[in-house]
Amino acid sequence: MTDRDSYTQVILVIHRTSLLFSIPGVSNLTSHLRNLGNGANAEYDLVVIGGGSGGLAAAKEATALGAKVAVLDYVTPTPIGTKWGLGGTCVNVGCIPKKLMHQAALLGEAIHDAKTYGWELEPENIHHSWESLKDAVQGHIKSVNWVTRVELRDKKVEYINGQGKFVDPHTIHTQTKQGERTLTAKYFLIAVGGRPRYPDIPGAVEYGITSDDIFSLPKPPGKTLIVGAGYIGLECAGFLRGLGYEATVLIRSIPLRGFDQQMANLIVAEMEDKGVKFEHRCIPKSVEKADDGRLKVVWQNEHSEEFSDIFDTVLFAIGRRALTKELDIDKSGVKVAPDNEKIDAENEQTNVPHIFAVGDVLYKKPELTPVAIHAGRLLARRLFGGSTIHMDYDNVATTVFTPLEYGVVGLSEETAIERFGEDNIEVYHAYYKPTEFFIPQKSIVHCYLKVVAMREGDQKVLGMHFIGPQAGEVIQGFSAAMKCKLTIKCMMDTVGIHPTIAEELTRIKITRRSGLDPSPQACCS
Amino acid sequence: MTDRDSYTQVILVIHRTSLLFSIPGVSNLTSHLRNLGNGANAEYDLVVIGGGSGGLAAAKEATALGAKVAVLDYVTPTPIGTKWGLGGTCVNVGCIPKKLMHQAALLGEAIHDAKTYGWELEPENIHHSWESLKDAVQGHIKSVNWVTRVELRDKKVEYINGQGKFVDPHTIHTQTKQGERTLTAKYFLIAVGGRPRYPDIPGAVEYGITSDDIFSLPKPPGKTLIVGAGYIGLECAGFLRGLGYEATVLIRSIPLRGFDQQMANLIVAEMEDKGVKFEHRCIPKSVEKADDGRLKVVWQNEHSEEFSDIFDTVLFAIGRRALTKELDIDKSGVKVAPDNEKIDAENEQTNVPHIFAVGDVLYKKPELTPVAIHAGRLLARRLFGGSTIHMDYDNVATTVFTPLEYGVVGLSEETAIERFGEDNIEVYHAYYKPTEFFIPQKSIVHCYLKVVAMREGDQKVLGMHFIGPQAGEVIQGFSAAMKCKLTIKCMMDTVGIHPTIAEELTRIKITRRSGLDPSPQACCS
Repeated sequence: MTDRDSYTQVILVIHRTSLLFSIPGVSNLTSHLRNLGNGANAEYDLVVIGGGSGGLAAAKEATALGAKVAVLDYVTPTPIGTKWGLGGTCVNVGCIPKKLMHQAALLGEAIHDAKTYGWELEPENIHHSWESLKDAVQGHIKSVNWVTRVELRDKKVEYINGQGKFVDPHTIHTQTKQGERTLTAKYFLIAVGGRPRYPDIPGAVEYGITSDDIFSLPKPPGKTLIVGAGYIGLECAGFLRGLGYEATVLIRSIPLRGFDQQMANLIVAEMEDKGVKFEHRCIPKSVEKADDGRLKVVWQNEHSEEFSDIFDTVLFAIGRRALTKELDIDKSGVKVAPDNEKIDAENEQTNVPHIFAVGDVLYKKPELTPVAIHAGRLLARRLFGGSTIHMDYDNVATTVFTPLEYGVVGLSEETAIERFGEDNIEVYHAYYKPTEFFIPQKSIVHCYLKVVAMREGDQKVLGMHFIGPQAGEVIQGFSAAMKCKLTIKCMMDTVGIHPTIAEELTRIKITRRSGLDPSPQACCS
Repeated sequence: MTDRDSYTQVILVIHRTSLLFSIPGVSNLTSHLRNLGNGANAEYDLVVIGGGSGGLAAAKEATALGAKVAVLDYVTPTPIGTKWGLGGTCVNVGCIPKKLMHQAALLGEAIHDAKTYGWELEPENIHHSWESLKDAVQGHIKSVNWVTRVELRDKKVEYINGQGKFVDPHTIHTQTKQGERTLTAKYFLIAVGGRPRYPDIPGAVEYGITSDDIFSLPKPPGKTLIVGAGYIGLECAGFLRGLGYEATVLIRSIPLRGFDQQMANLIVAEMEDKGVKFEHRCIPKSVEKADDGRLKVVWQNEHSEEFSDIFDTVLFAIGRRALTKELDIDKSGVKVAPDNEKIDAENEQTNVPHIFAVGDVLYKKPELTPVAIHAGRLLARRLFGGSTIHMDYDNVATTVFTPLEYGVVGLSEETAIERFGEDNIEVYHAYYKPTEFFIPQKSIVHCYLKVVAMREGDQKVLGMHFIGPQAGEVIQGFSAAMKCKLTIKCMMDTVGIHPTIAEELTRIKITRRSGLDPSPQACCS
């Protein structure tokens, strides 16, 4: 412990109950305070608000370390009445159903591939049943809900099916079917996550749906307008098209904001090739019900020209808002960011030292399940296990599950240039041909990868970008390599596994600066 | 350069023409000798014998560096008359057709999966056409042969379709359709690879086939006996079963010799679950043609009990022999290992300093395409580009493309124990559930991974083992991480990509030593 830490600790103890500012690096010190203040007589060691990935991971870890823990979870139904069980966004209306519907779409492609590989079927005569898929997906989700609940019981984590609202910084109130409950705790963890936003236009809430609804939609979505081209919008458009539905995406400005834009545009181009329509630089103006019950959507382009079309389903994927207001967070003293009501926490500690936050509710942190889990688990270890290890939010890999997937870890080319200057970075890139694509003659024009590195010395890798099948499986190991300070030299020293697509990342040799043709290399020599 | 290197160089220059012993670490010095000795008046800078992955990679790289290069390639037909074009084992009778037939088998599984994901088809009524697949695979191979040949022409590498035979250490003779050729060169590269062996039993050569024949077999293989349980035998048995054929594997001793045996046995168990029969500790005694034209095979178990059955096809996968004899290698002065006629070369340099070897012909080196390519390319750079970089044969990743694949990099558990002692290593392991397996209710009992590490400190990773779908894509990036000195700490610090199967490697926490249950973890918290 440095002198500065000790000093900070003293200040913290003195001002504890009125602390409304965050002091960097002190979160591990708060464990010294467990028996001080209001927390001393508290009913629980930890109350977690929100039974999603981050909250549950923290709760289970804390309980395993001997803490008395309760988790509150409550799902407000969507405007069209969709609701779900324990487990949060990922399990119910996020990664899991999304990946399963993506898989269903890929299997549709596989049926076409199968014919070219000798399987005697007629792909054009094989149709898809939305109801069957929806039932299968919902069945799986229900089983996860159940397993999650059983696991909490086994691990002695108390589960309360109620919405938590702060009464004061040390007290949470909730209404359950069994009656009212007031809970006090030494620590609180805000892990309430977020929910999709709707645009402020006529008909949006009445007639639109979001990713909260699509995976349990009772009827086939039909011709669908997807408003928004972030990863959720593109993933939904991708699997809907793959399942045979017409899909149109309205993009306000750029696709996949925050991601490398060269890669983002390749993803859009690939989706266009697969039949998804894109309306660029357009915003929705209104949704109304036509006489036949379908939905008429009016939108406007950047020149204020209006267009309209009829759709069966309108899905808004324009962003998500954190559920902090529903917490009566002002009564806790926890400050939220003025722009989006998220919580700006250093090492997951809010400005109120005994109140923490993990997951999608955090300001300017990746909204990803494994990030929430990792942060939640490490936090529990710091609070109850004497650990001093903090979450490292850098170089977190992720994958966009569009028809051709996009796996990425580290910096985009734009960010690398911004941070280090164009002259100081080197961009290696290549197109490649997946072996399995030849027989079905699948398009390879968007099978592309890019590695952004420092230019000098062994060329430290700053970012890796991979478009192709199985991109998540491909990029995960390289993200571990980046944690080990991967360099271009090291990548080039790595021997490939043949024939895989991941091996293409070990074969990089063309720099963008060289101007050489990054066309696919020979397959086996 | 160290003093010892300089000294060695002097010795080498003096004794050059009579050198019949190998001096470690001198390969990069031989470039100083290019204009000395018989090589000085040679027609070529480099003659490569064998147009497979390693030979072609070296030839192309050498040519790019300004060398005058010829490649000799010739395929002796198999006993049943199978032959093929330029490109070597990988392209024609190895990785490429194997991966494509594996893919065909996986697509058969995908058809079953598709139904559960809502695609309206009847898997039980969908049959496979061997002829269509064989034609598609052979069509792809022909296109690669052609592209390879065009590439050689474009890159000014002379291609000679003839079998090279040494006349003396500096001269190769060959017979082509156009007539006889005698070639002299400063350097020779032996890259002749290997071919499958047949057992010395009645009927083996007359009635049996090998991996050289299976991928172009004109008629469906039908009920097949695979003799041998190395990776080639298991891969063939796996895709044949997946395509709907009865497959029986005769194992003499252990499956996947040289691989981690716990993993090998899981692979066998999974294949058994998928309907492949295994006859353990059995060796074939004879193959004869029955009256109906089918093949009667007699085999013997370890107690000398005899068994027999009738098959349509008998495929021998009992090992491969290097094609050094065909080279008249004794006339070159290059020594071969007494046990298997392979070439024991240090840094790819044989005991005759101007003769090099890469690929499957090398003694005790991994028989893998990317290894041959990497070694060939690095060698060309040392010979003609002033490079001093040697091939690192350690920690080369590979994948066995059985129905559930097995990806591996680094040491087996057995080797780690042997090398460091059981007390000094830690084995992390886990079963896991691929998200996509739930809906089709596919068996997860063999989805297993294992990481072998040093026990102390940050726990340097020694070996990684992964059984599951897409194992090659999963393990490749981690093999790059191992090049960067991956530790368990680093793996645990890596945030997963959800939902993937590769993320399971970032979730390891159970050690074998702990005795804790390595059952699958909760999916999303």
